[in-house]
Amino acid sequence: MSVRVGIIGVGVMGADHARVLASQVPGAVLQALYDADPTRAKAVADETGAQSVAADPLALVRDPSIDAVLVASPDATHKDLTLACLAARKPVLCEKPLAPTTAECREVLAAESKLGRRLVQVGYMRRFDPAYVDMKMTMLSGRLGAPLIFHCVHRNVSAPSWFDSRMAVSNSAVHEFDIARWMLDTELTDIQVFRPKAARADSPGAPVFLVLETACGQLVNVEIFIDATYGYDVRGELVCEKGTVSLGAPGRTEVSLDLAHGSAYPADWRPRFADAYRLQNQAWIAAIAGGASAGASAWDGYAAAAVAEAGLQSLAENRSVSISLVEKATLYK
Amino acid sequence: MSVRVGIIGVGVMGADHARVLASQVPGAVLQALYDADPTRAKAVADETGAQSVAADPLALVRDPSIDAVLVASPDATHKDLTLACLAARKPVLCEKPLAPTTAECREVLAAESKLGRRLVQVGYMRRFDPAYVDMKMTMLSGRLGAPLIFHCVHRNVSAPSWFDSRMAVSNSAVHEFDIARWMLDTELTDIQVFRPKAARADSPGAPVFLVLETACGQLVNVEIFIDATYGYDVRGELVCEKGTVSLGAPGRTEVSLDLAHGSAYPADWRPRFADAYRLQNQAWIAAIAGGASAGASAWDGYAAAAVAEAGLQSLAENRSVSISLVEKATLYK
Amino acid sequence: MSVRVGIIGVGVMGADHARVLASQVPGAVLQALYDADPTRAKAVADETGAQSVAADPLALVRDPSIDAVLVASPDATHKDLTLACLAARKPVLCEKPLAPTTAECREVLAAESKLGRRLVQVGYMRRFDPAYVDMKMTMLSGRLGAPLIFHCVHRNVSAPSWFDSRMAVSNSAVHEFDIARWMLDTELTDIQVFRPKAARADSPGAPVFLVLETACGQLVNVEIFIDATYGYDVRGELVCEKGTVSLGAPGRTEVSLDLAHGSAYPADWRPRFADAYRLQNQAWIAAIAGGASAGASAWDGYAAAAVAEAGLQSLAENRSVSISLVEKATLYK
Amino acid sequence: MSVRVGIIGVGVMGADHARVLASQVPGAVLQALYDADPTRAKAVADETGAQSVAADPLALVRDPSIDAVLVASPDATHKDLTLACLAARKPVLCEKPLAPTTAECREVLAAESKLGRRLVQVGYMRRFDPAYVDMKMTMLSGRLGAPLIFHCVHRNVSAPSWFDSRMAVSNSAVHEFDIARWMLDTELTDIQVFRPKAARADSPGAPVFLVLETACGQLVNVEIFIDATYGYDVRGELVCEKGTVSLGAPGRTEVSLDLAHGSAYPADWRPRFADAYRLQNQAWIAAIAGGASAGASAWDGYAAAAVAEAGLQSLAENRSVSISLVEKATLYK
Repeated sequence: MSVRVGIIGVGVMGADHARVLASQVPGAVLQALYDADPTRAKAVADETGAQSVAADPLALVRDPSIDAVLVASPDATHKDLTLACLAARKPVLCEKPLAPTTAECREVLAAESKLGRRLVQVGYMRRFDPAYVDMKMTMLSGRLGAPLIFHCVHRNVSAPSWFDSRMAVSNSAVHEFDIARWMLDTELTDIQVFRPKAARADSPGAPVFLVLETACGQLVNVEIFIDATYGYDVRGELVCEKGTVSLGAPGRTEVSLDLAHGSAYPADWRPRFADAYRLQNQAWIAAIAGGASAGASAWDGYAAAAVAEAGLQSLAENRSVSISLVEKATLYK
Repeated sequence: MSVRVGIIGVGVMGADHARVLASQVPGAVLQALYDADPTRAKAVADETGAQSVAADPLALVRDPSIDAVLVASPDATHKDLTLACLAARKPVLCEKPLAPTTAECREVLAAESKLGRRLVQVGYMRRFDPAYVDMKMTMLSGRLGAPLIFHCVHRNVSAPSWFDSRMAVSNSAVHEFDIARWMLDTELTDIQVFRPKAARADSPGAPVFLVLETACGQLVNVEIFIDATYGYDVRGELVCEKGTVSLGAPGRTEVSLDLAHGSAYPADWRPRFADAYRLQNQAWIAAIAGGASAGASAWDGYAAAAVAEAGLQSLAENRSVSISLVEKATLYK
Repeated sequence: MSVRVGIIGVGVMGADHARVLASQVPGAVLQALYDADPTRAKAVADETGAQSVAADPLALVRDPSIDAVLVASPDATHKDLTLACLAARKPVLCEKPLAPTTAECREVLAAESKLGRRLVQVGYMRRFDPAYVDMKMTMLSGRLGAPLIFHCVHRNVSAPSWFDSRMAVSNSAVHEFDIARWMLDTELTDIQVFRPKAARADSPGAPVFLVLETACGQLVNVEIFIDATYGYDVRGELVCEKGTVSLGAPGRTEVSLDLAHGSAYPADWRPRFADAYRLQNQAWIAAIAGGASAGASAWDGYAAAAVAEAGLQSLAENRSVSISLVEKATLYK
Repeated sequence: MSVRVGIIGVGVMGADHARVLASQVPGAVLQALYDADPTRAKAVADETGAQSVAADPLALVRDPSIDAVLVASPDATHKDLTLACLAARKPVLCEKPLAPTTAECREVLAAESKLGRRLVQVGYMRRFDPAYVDMKMTMLSGRLGAPLIFHCVHRNVSAPSWFDSRMAVSNSAVHEFDIARWMLDTELTDIQVFRPKAARADSPGAPVFLVLETACGQLVNVEIFIDATYGYDVRGELVCEKGTVSLGAPGRTEVSLDLAHGSAYPADWRPRFADAYRLQNQAWIAAIAGGASAGASAWDGYAAAAVAEAGLQSLAENRSVSISLVEKATLYK
C-alpha cells in the first residue's frame, strides 16, 4: 500500500528526506514538494522523481492527492504547518523542533488532543539509530542492572554563521534531551548549565556542559561543543548498577598511516545518522500504512522544548532550574 | 519505475531476499515466489505481501508478468535456472555460487556471451558492504600506496550438519576469492591450502589456511574456520606500501561487565551483512530499471569457482596449484 | 648512591611499596620497616629482604641509619609522622592523603616552609602514570589547542566494609582533584556534587558526580562510582579547542570468546597503576639521591584536601561551594 | 645480593641495556663496559655510572671483578664471546642471534653441554613482554581450547642502509620464530616463504610472508615488512578451538584530531618493548643471584637460527623446506 507524501521545505534536511523516501522507503510516493525557493523545489523534484512542485505549502497540505506531510521548512513555520496538517487530518513528520517555544508546542498538543488521534511525529531520528537502539536493548535486558547516570557528548566541526551561543542549548542539546528521555523512559526535572570561561568569549560554538536530573532519580550530563573542529562526534555511555554500555567508536575501517592507527570521523551528522533517518522514515511510512504511530510524539517535541527553555534560563541566571511540564493528556500516555 | 521480481527458492536466504525486496527496496514488486515446498512459499508470500505463489520454477521464469528473477534455490539448480533466465532474456540475481563447477559456469558464460548482453548478477554481496567499500575507497585514494598483501579471516560459529571439510574451500572461501578479486581488481593465479593437523581429525569445520597470488603480484591469505565457536567474524587487512586499512571491529556498542570491556559478535552472517544485502538488492533493481548492470558478473562467478576448484586440488594434493581461466569474452571486459 | 629507606605501615599499600623498592628501584635500600602489627612487619621484611624491623615509628624516623621515610600507615597518623620527618630533616613520601583535614595539612605546610626546604612528597602516583603523562605531553604539544573541559571517571568493583558514602569525595575523588590540578597546572576554585537518587539509599558506594571549575576557567567533571561491580576503571578525556585526548582502553590483549570481543579490567587499582607506583618510587629515590624533589608536594596534598572539604560541604548542602586556599608560600611557587 | 655486570658493545642496544641495568634493575652493578669505539664506551659509562671501561672484550670476560656478561656487540662476535664466557664459567646474556649460523650455535650448545650447566641466555626479550605473557596465560587458562593457528605481523618503518632482502628472514623473523616456539611450546618443522612480486624489486625491506608448521600440528604464519613506513607494529593473534587472543592496539592514549580518532605507533621497537627489556634484564639478574636460569636458552637460540636457515633456503628455492634440528641434549630438556 502506497503513501503519497508531500514535503514542505527542501533545503539540506528536506532534500535529504526526499532522497531517502525516493530511494530507501518502499511504499512512499513523492507526490509533491514545496520550497520557498521554487528553483530549488524544481531541482530536488527532478533529482528524486517527485511528481509535482506545489506553489503553496498550505495548498499542499490540503491537496487530496497527498496522504501525509513531511515538514522540513524553517523552525518558525513548524507550528502553523503542523496545525494545518492536523486540521486536514493528515499524518505529519515534523523536523525537530516541533516549535521554537513551549507555548507554540502546547498549541499543537491542544489541537491534537482535541482531535483525539495521534498524527504528529517529530523528527528525533536518534530513536531509530541502531547504536542507541542497541544501547537501550542492552539496558532493557537487565544484565547491567538499573541505569544511574547517562553521559552524553555532542560535538560538531564548527558553528554555522547564523549560530549564537544560546543555540547550543536550544537547537543542539534538544537531541540529547530527547534521547535521554527515550532511553530512560522518564522526564527530565532539573537542569543546570555550566560554561568553561576559558573558551574564547566571542565564540558562539564554545562548549557548554549540562547536568540534568530525571523523575526517576538518574543523572544525565551533556557536553555540547559546536566548534570542536576535529569531527562530528556523538558519544554516550549509560552507567548502570553492574556495568555500562557505550556507543561504539566511529568508522567502518581502521587505517594505519603516518605513525598513527585510527578511524575517521564524518564532517557532519548525515553520514553518522544516515541509518537513523532511513529507519525513521521507513517506520513513519509503515505506521501510516498500518494505521499506527511511531517515533517521537508531539508530547516528546513539547518536553524537549521545555527542557531547552529551562536550560536557557539556567544559562542566563547561572543556577539550577526546575523543568515544569503541563499535564500530560491521555492521548500521550 | 517498478521491477516485478520472481524469487525461486525461499529458504533461509531466499526468504531474507523476499523481506529485503519488500521492505527495503523501492521499485521492487514481489510478483511471485516459488519453492519446492509450497507451504513455505505460501508462508513467505503471506509475510512479505508477494502477489502469488508459482507452481513451477521454469513457468515463473517465463511468466510475462515477471521482469526479473532472483535465484536462491539449491546450488545444483543454479545453472539451469540461470540459463532459463537468459533464454527468457530476463535479468537474474543468482545466489552464489553461480554453479558448483567451472564447467557449468562456462555454460552460462557461453550463453550470455552469445546473447551479447549482461543479464546475470551473482550474489557476492560483500562488494556492497560499506566496510569493504570504504576499504577500497581508501586504497584507491592513493594515500596508502599500492596494495601488496591482503589478509583475510572468515569464521563461523559452527559447521552445519551437511558440511564436509572440502566445503571450507568450495563454499565459504569463495566469498574471499571474490572480494579479493574485486578489491585488487585482478585475477588470482595460484593457490596453496594448508591445514593445521592439530585440529580434530573428525571435524569438518576445522580451519584451513590459504595462500594465493594475484596476476598483479600481490599475496592474499585466507583463514577459513567454520567451527570457530566464538562468533561470526569476518576480518580483512589490506597492507599497502605506506600503510594499511582494516575492517573495523564488530558491534555498534561496547559493554563493560564482569571484568571485561567489549562488543558483541553476531551468531551468523545475516546481521553482519544486512547492509550489504540491502544495498546489493537496491543496486540490482536500480540497474534493471536503468538498463545497466551492477555487482558480480557471470565472469566473476566463474572465476571464483575456478579458484575453488584449484583450491580443492591443492587440498587433495598438498601442493601449490595454478589457477587457469578460459579466455575472457569481450562482454566481460 | 644508595638511599636507605624506612617504611612506616606495611599493610596493602605499604607492603607493595616495600616490594617495589626492593625489586624495581635501584639505589633504594630497605633499611627498616615498622607496622603496628609486628608479625606483619616481620613477614614483609622476610619477603623483601628489609634489613630490620623497627619497634617504634618515631624511632625509625630518627634512626641515623635511615635516609628517607615512606609513610603508608593509617591516614590519621600521616600528619604527625610527616612532621616528625621534617623535624628530623628527612625526605618523606607520604601516602595520600597528606592528612584528613586542611587544618592538619596547613601544619605540615607551616613546618616545611619554616624549614625552607621541600622534603615532603605526597603519594599521588597518577602523575607518573605513562598514560596521564602521555595525555599531558599531547596537550602541551599544542596540537589540540588549549584545554577547556576534563572528563574524569573513577570506578571500583565494590566499596570496602569500612566505606561510608562521604568517602567517595574525601578518599577517592582526591586522586582526580590532584590529577586535574597537575594536568591543567592550575587550582580548582568551585565544586558542586550531584547524587543520582536512583541509587540504592543504603549503598555507601553509590555514584556521585562532581562538577568543578578551575582558576583558568576550565570545567572538570568527575564520576566516582565505588560499587561499579564490573571492574576497576579509570577514564579521562581532555577536551581542547581543536581535539581531544583520552586515556586508552584497558588490557594488553583482546579476547574473542562467547559471542564477544574485548579486553579485561583489573579487579583493583594495583595492576592499573603498577607502572605509576614504580616510576613514582624511582623518581623519589632519584630525587633524594640528586638533591632535588619530584612528584606532588605538601602544597598539592593540601590543595586536594581543600577541594575534598569543599566537596563534602557541597554534598551536605546540595549547592556549589567555593574552594578557598591559604596563601601559597614561596617554597611552593 | 649484587651482580657485577660487564657489557660488551654499547651501540644502540648495548647502551640501552646499560641504561636499563643502571636505572631499572636493583642488584645489578655496572662494573665495566667495552666497545670497539672507546669514546663511545666512555660516554656511556659517564652517562650510566659504570665503574670502568675495559680495553679488551676477552679481558672483560675474564676479569674476576665481573660476575656476568651482557654481549651486545656485532652478530659475528657473539659465538666467540659466548664461548669465552662459558670458558670463564660466567652467566652471559647474549643479544639475539646467538650466532649467524647454526654451525656456530652448535659450538655453543656443545660447550655448554660439556660444562653441564646452563649459563647462556639469548636476548629474545619478547618472552618477557607483558602482552605476550598475557596471551600465553590466556591460552594456558584453557578457556579458549587448544591453539591451532598463530598469525604474526612484524613491521618496521624502514630498512636500515645495511639491510638486504634476506635479512627479513634471518634477522627480523627470528623474533617471531622464537615467540611462536615459546608460545606453543613446540618446535617448528616446516617453512615456506612467499614474496609479493608487486613490491618494488629494488626494495630490501619489501614484505615477505612465511607459513610454518609445528611439531604439534599448528600453523604459524608471519608477515615481515621492514619498509612498512607507517610505524613500528607487532601484531599477533592466537586462534584456538573456541576463541582467539590478540595483542592489543598500540598506544596509551587516544587522540581525536583532524577528522580521525586513533592512537600513535612508535617509530621503532624500543618504546614498544621497553617493558620487555626491563623485565628480561631483571629476570636475568635475579636468576643469576638466585642460581637459576631464565629466558631463552642456547637451545632456543640455535632453534631460531635453524628455522631462519631453512627459511633462507625456501626463499632461494621457492618451495617448502623441512627444518631439521640436532638431537636435544639433556641439559635443555
